Amino acid sequence: MSDSLLDVALVGASGYTGAELVRLLASHRFVRLRNLYARRRAGERLGDVLPSLRGLPVGDRILQPFDPDLVEGEVVFLALPHGASAPAAAALRRRGLRIIDLSADFRLRDPAVYEAWYRPHPAPELLPEAVYGLVELYREALRGADLVAVPGCYPTASLLALAPLLREGLIEPDGIVVDAKSGVSGAGRSLRETTHYPHVAEGLRAYGVGGTHRHTPEIEQEASRLAGHRIRLLFTPHLVPANRGILAAVYAEARPGTDAHRCSEAAEALYGSSPLVEVLPPGQSPDTLWVRASARAMLSYSFCERTGRILALSAIDNLLKGAAAQAVQAFNVLHELPETEALPLAAPWP
Amino acid sequence: MSDSLLDVALVGASGYTGAELVRLLASHRFVRLRNLYARRRAGERLGDVLPSLRGLPVGDRILQPFDPDLVEGEVVFLALPHGASAPAAAALRRRGLRIIDLSADFRLRDPAVYEAWYRPHPAPELLPEAVYGLVELYREALRGADLVAVPGCYPTASLLALAPLLREGLIEPDGIVVDAKSGVSGAGRSLRETTHYPHVAEGLRAYGVGGTHRHTPEIEQEASRLAGHRIRLLFTPHLVPANRGILAAVYAEARPGTDAHRCSEAAEALYGSSPLVEVLPPGQSPDTLWVRASARAMLSYSFCERTGRILALSAIDNLLKGAAAQAVQAFNVLHELPETEALPLAAPWP
Amino acid sequence: MSDSLLDVALVGASGYTGAELVRLLASHRFVRLRNLYARRRAGERLGDVLPSLRGLPVGDRILQPFDPDLVEGEVVFLALPHGASAPAAAALRRRGLRIIDLSADFRLRDPAVYEAWYRPHPAPELLPEAVYGLVELYREALRGADLVAVPGCYPTASLLALAPLLREGLIEPDGIVVDAKSGVSGAGRSLRETTHYPHVAEGLRAYGVGGTHRHTPEIEQEASRLAGHRIRLLFTPHLVPANRGILAAVYAEARPGTDAHRCSEAAEALYGSSPLVEVLPPGQSPDTLWVRASARAMLSYSFCERTGRILALSAIDNLLKGAAAQAVQAFNVLHELPETEALPLAAPWP
Amino acid sequence: MSDSLLDVALVGASGYTGAELVRLLASHRFVRLRNLYARRRAGERLGDVLPSLRGLPVGDRILQPFDPDLVEGEVVFLALPHGASAPAAAALRRRGLRIIDLSADFRLRDPAVYEAWYRPHPAPELLPEAVYGLVELYREALRGADLVAVPGCYPTASLLALAPLLREGLIEPDGIVVDAKSGVSGAGRSLRETTHYPHVAEGLRAYGVGGTHRHTPEIEQEASRLAGHRIRLLFTPHLVPANRGILAAVYAEARPGTDAHRCSEAAEALYGSSPLVEVLPPGQSPDTLWVRASARAMLSYSFCERTGRILALSAIDNLLKGAAAQAVQAFNVLHELPETEALPLAAPWP
Repeated sequence: MSDSLLDVALVGASGYTGAELVRLLASHRFVRLRNLYARRRAGERLGDVLPSLRGLPVGDRILQPFDPDLVEGEVVFLALPHGASAPAAAALRRRGLRIIDLSADFRLRDPAVYEAWYRPHPAPELLPEAVYGLVELYREALRGADLVAVPGCYPTASLLALAPLLREGLIEPDGIVVDAKSGVSGAGRSLRETTHYPHVAEGLRAYGVGGTHRHTPEIEQEASRLAGHRIRLLFTPHLVPANRGILAAVYAEARPGTDAHRCSEAAEALYGSSPLVEVLPPGQSPDTLWVRASARAMLSYSFCERTGRILALSAIDNLLKGAAAQAVQAFNVLHELPETEALPLAAPWP
Repeated sequence: MSDSLLDVALVGASGYTGAELVRLLASHRFVRLRNLYARRRAGERLGDVLPSLRGLPVGDRILQPFDPDLVEGEVVFLALPHGASAPAAAALRRRGLRIIDLSADFRLRDPAVYEAWYRPHPAPELLPEAVYGLVELYREALRGADLVAVPGCYPTASLLALAPLLREGLIEPDGIVVDAKSGVSGAGRSLRETTHYPHVAEGLRAYGVGGTHRHTPEIEQEASRLAGHRIRLLFTPHLVPANRGILAAVYAEARPGTDAHRCSEAAEALYGSSPLVEVLPPGQSPDTLWVRASARAMLSYSFCERTGRILALSAIDNLLKGAAAQAVQAFNVLHELPETEALPLAAPWP
Repeated sequence: MSDSLLDVALVGASGYTGAELVRLLASHRFVRLRNLYARRRAGERLGDVLPSLRGLPVGDRILQPFDPDLVEGEVVFLALPHGASAPAAAALRRRGLRIIDLSADFRLRDPAVYEAWYRPHPAPELLPEAVYGLVELYREALRGADLVAVPGCYPTASLLALAPLLREGLIEPDGIVVDAKSGVSGAGRSLRETTHYPHVAEGLRAYGVGGTHRHTPEIEQEASRLAGHRIRLLFTPHLVPANRGILAAVYAEARPGTDAHRCSEAAEALYGSSPLVEVLPPGQSPDTLWVRASARAMLSYSFCERTGRILALSAIDNLLKGAAAQAVQAFNVLHELPETEALPLAAPWP
Repeated sequence: MSDSLLDVALVGASGYTGAELVRLLASHRFVRLRNLYARRRAGERLGDVLPSLRGLPVGDRILQPFDPDLVEGEVVFLALPHGASAPAAAALRRRGLRIIDLSADFRLRDPAVYEAWYRPHPAPELLPEAVYGLVELYREALRGADLVAVPGCYPTASLLALAPLLREGLIEPDGIVVDAKSGVSGAGRSLRETTHYPHVAEGLRAYGVGGTHRHTPEIEQEASRLAGHRIRLLFTPHLVPANRGILAAVYAEARPGTDAHRCSEAAEALYGSSPLVEVLPPGQSPDTLWVRASARAMLSYSFCERTGRILALSAIDNLLKGAAAQAVQAFNVLHELPETEALPLAAPWP
C-alpha cells in the first residue's frame, strides 16, 4: 500500500491547529508525514513543543526551519498566520505543490474585500484557483483542487447552520444575526491579557462588536452565494471559559410556511450524506461538549411562533471541524480518499 | 440607632439566593435580622446548610420551619419557588407585613399572562399592589411599596440594556433578539443532569429555545411599557461553564440617526444617578468577571454601520444584581435608606 | 478477517466508563461489538443516553436489559457498581464467558479485606482466578486469563509511580503518603451535592480523609507485593474542578543512594517496552492535560536533598488509563492482540 | 472621626494583590487612601487597569509613578516584586514611614537564607525590625511595628495548619510533607505559557518539585520557631484550574496520644479568639470555595489510625488571607483597630 501513500508536509506545527494536524495526520493510513516546519521554534523537538506528543514516535521529530523552496512533499498543510501564508503559498505553488491553507488568506474571493478587512492581498493571482474548503458545500469542487482555503472556525459553524435555510429560501436573507461563542483555544497560543487564565475563568464577554470581526466578510461571502444575492449580517463573537468549542446561534426571520421541522428537513436533505454533520430533531439543542475532540458538527433548528423567528444552533470543536479536521476532510475529498479517514467521530464524553 | 432598625425575616434561606440575602442582610446597618426560615432544611444550623457561614454568628442560627402565620418582623424577603410564593405572600400580607418577593409570582401584571406561562395565579388580588423592583426604572414607585416583585435575572440584564433605547425611541421595537448567557448558579441548588459538573465543564448550550423561556413575558411586559406599545421579542438563554454571571446581548435595528454614542448618552442620561449601573464608553464591552460578587451592572452599546444594527451588552452577577442585591436595593429605596447600603460595589477581581 | 473477530458484550453502557468503552470498542479492529446492556436505562437508544454518539451507527443501538443468562458473546466487559458486579460475574463465568470487570469486586485478593472495606464478598470463589489488570505489572499473567479485575483509577496512577521504586528498593516502604487529585468524572454520573457544578467550580477539597477511601487497600495490596512485605500507606484523594484527569503525588523517604535519576532509570527499565507509560526526564513534571483523552500515563521523579524525600508524580485520564482504556489494554494483552489496539495515544491538546 | 484617619499609600496597585488592597482600603473606615503608585502603568486611570473599579470613585484615580522620596502618607502598603521591595522599603523607612510589605523581602530573618534562595539581600539592616505578619501567631509583636513582612500565600495556609500541632508537640517534627494546591491568580498578572488559559483549564500539575519552591524556607523558619528547634520539610505546590484558593495538605506522623480531636482542640485553643480562622470539627474538610473572596481560613484535622499519620487541611483565598486581607489585618492590629475592619468574612457562595 505504501505506493499509494501521499507525501505530506506541515508548516506551522507548533500552534494549536498544528498540534491537531500532527495528531490526525500521524494516524492517517494514506499519508506519509514528511517534515514538520515551524518558524520561531524550528530546531526544537516536537514533543517539547507539544507535550502531549512526548514519547510518541512523532514527538521525536525535530521542527525544521520553514523555507518554501526546500519543503518536500506533494501536499503541504499551511498553518500560518494570515498575511504570512499567502507568500508562502505562492512560492510553494510555483514549485507545483498542492496546498491546504488554514489561514484567512484565500478564503475571500475578492482581493478588494481582503484588503478592506486585512491589508493588500500578497498573492491575488492565486485567488481564482482557491477552493473554499467547507466540504459539505464544495465537495465536488474540491476534487483535484490545488489550493484549498480551509474556512475559519466561526464561518464553519455559522454557515453549516445557515446553508440549508438560505438554499431553500426558508428565511429572509436580511437582518440575520449571528451570536457566536467560542472557547479560548480559538485565540491561539500567543499570550495575551485577554487569554490569561485569571481573566477568563468565571468571565464571559463579547469582542469584535459592531460587526468588526474579520470572519464577517467570509460568512457574508458564502451566505450570499447560497442565497443568490448579496447578504449583510451582523456577526458577534464571544469568549467563554472553556478550552474548545464553538456554539453559533443564528437568528433569522422565517418566511411564510417555515417552521422548525421544515428547517430540519432541509438540513437533513443537504447533509444526509455528510458523515460529519448531525442534525438533531426539533426540540433538542446541541452542546459543544458533545463534539469536543470530535470532527463532527451538530445542528438544530427551532421556531418561535410569537416572533416568527428561526434560531439555528451549530456546535463544533473549533480546532477540529473548525480547523484541523476540516483541513484533513478537505484533503481526503480532494484525493478521493474516505472522507472521514483519520478523523475522530465519537467525542470522548464527558 | 437601634430604634431605627427594621425587623427583617427571610424565607428560603437555604438556596443560593437565600445565601446571598443572608450575607447582605447580616451586614446591613439598618436591619435587625430576625428569623431565617426554610422548608426542607428547617431545623438545621445555617452554617451546615451554607458552608461559607460556618463559624460566623449568623451561621449558628437554626433554620425555622416556615409558617406564614408565625413569621415575625416588619419586612419579609421571600425566596421561594414560583407558585409557592404567592400563597405565602397572601398570608403575610393579611398580617400586614411588607414583602420583598424574589419569585416570579408578582412580576407579571396580567394574571392571564401568568397563567399562560405558569399556571392559574394563586393570589391575583395582590397583583395591583405589586411594584416591579427594577430600581433604576421604578425608583419612585418603590417608595413605601408593600409588595415588591424582584425582577428575574435575565430580565434585569436585558431590560437595563433595553430601557434607554426604548425610552428614547432609538431602536425599532420589532425584531429585537436577546441572546443571553448565564453561569450555572442561576439554575439553583437542585440537582439536575444538566447542572452535573461533568456535563457543564467544557460545554456550552442553549436552552428554552423557540421563545419558550418563562422570562420572555416579563421582558416583553416591561419592554412594552418602555416603548409605549406592545413588543414581542425573541429571548434565548444559554448555559456557560461558570458559577456566576449573566451576559445579555440585545440586538435591535437602529432608527435613523442612532449610533453607539447616541445610545451611550441615552443610557448615561437614564442611569447617571444610579449607583449600580455603569455605562462603558463606546469601544468597550463588559465582562461578567468585572461584576462577579458585585451588585453592579455594566452596559455597553455598539453600532454596526453595515447592517444598521445596535448591539447592547449587559453584564451582571445573576445572584446579586440579578436577585439578592436587587432585592436589598429595592428594600433600601422603599425605606428611603441609602440605595447601596449593604451592597458590594467593587468586585473581587480577578 | 471476520473469522478472527471476537464477540464482545458490554454491561453498564450508560455510565461514563461505559461511554468510553463503547467508543473504544466500536473502533476496535478485532472486535465484533455485540449487545450493550444497561440496568436503569434499558430500552433507550444509546445516542439518547450518550449524546456524543448521536448519529453514529453505534448510537442507534438500543440498550438491552441485563440478564447474565442471556448475554451473548465470548468476552463481557462489566462496568457495574461494586457489589453488583460479583454476582453478575459469577453467573457469566458459569456459562464460560470471559470477563473484564471494571468494578472493585475482584481487585482485592483477600475476601476478608474486601469485607472489611465493603461488605461480605458476593463471590469469593472467583477470586483465585482473577488477574489484576494493571498490564504493565501483570502482562504475562493476563495472557489467557478468564477474569480480569481492572484496577481503580487512583490505584493505577499511584502504583505506576510506586512500582519501580518498590521493586528496586529505592525507597523506604514505611511512611509513604499518596496525595491524589481527580477530576469530577471519576465520581460518576450519579447526581450528588458534591458534584453539582456550582459546588465544584472554583473550589478544591479533600475527601476520604483519615485513610478511609476504599482504594487504600488496593494500593496497599499491590504495593506490598511489589515490596515483598506488607506495606501500609496513607492515601488521600482530592476533587479538583476539571472533568478528567488524575494526578497522584507519591511521597517517600529515599534510601541511601537514591536520587531522581536513579528513580527515572528504574522506571525506564520497568516501562521501557510499555507503550502506554511515558517517563519524563528529571526536571519535568506531568500535566493531566497532556494525557486528557489519551490512554497513556506520564510519570516523573524528583528528589529533595534537604529532606531526603522522593516525589513521584503520575498523570492519567481517569476514564481511560484509569478505567476504559486499561480494560481494553488488558483485553488486548489477554488475547495477544496489539497492546494499543483501539487506544488513543496522542491527546487532543490543548 | 476624620482626625483619627490614617493616611495610607499603596505602591503596586496594578497587580492582583494591589487590586484587592485598593478594594479593601477604599472601604476602610479608619483609612484615608492617599496616592496609588505603580511602576509600568503609572499615568493610567485605575479603572482602566482594574476593570472592576470602573465607575467607582477610586477607579478615577490616576496611578502615580513611584518615587519613594515623594510618597505621601503615614503607612505604605508595598505590593512590589521581591528584590524591588527592599530598596523601596529602605528609602521609605529613612523618611519615617511605616511599611506593610507584601513581598518576600522581609519574611526571612536570616539574610544568608534569603541569599541562598533569592540573591544577596538589598537591605539586611532592616531585617531586625521586621515583624512577620501572620497575625494569629504574632498579634502582640505587631502592635506598633514599623515594618511588617506579610507572609506568603502558601506559608499562611501551611503554618495556620501546622502551628497548633508544633506548639503542642502533637506531631513528629521530622518528615513533614506539605502538598499544596493553588488557583492561578497566585501566579500573578504577568503573562506566561503556564498560565495561558488553554494550558490550565482541564489540567493539573505540580511545580517547584524537589523542595525548590522559595516558600520552603519561609515555612521552615516559622515551623522551626514553633517547634523550638530546626525543622526541614518538603513543600510541593500544584496549579489547579481555578482563579483563587489555596488548599494545603500537611502530612505528619502523630505522636503517641494524638488523634484528630486532640489536634482540633489544640487549634481551637490557639485560634479561639482569632476571628479569621475557623476550625472545622473532625469529620469535615474545608473547601476553598467556602472562603473564596473571604478573609477567613478554614482548617481541619484527621487521623489515620492504620498509619499513625495526621492530615491537616487548610483553605484560604490566596489573594485575601494569603495576601491583601492579611496585610490589612496586620495593619489593623498594628494600629489597634478592630482586627476585621474592612475585611470580608462571609464568602459569596457559591
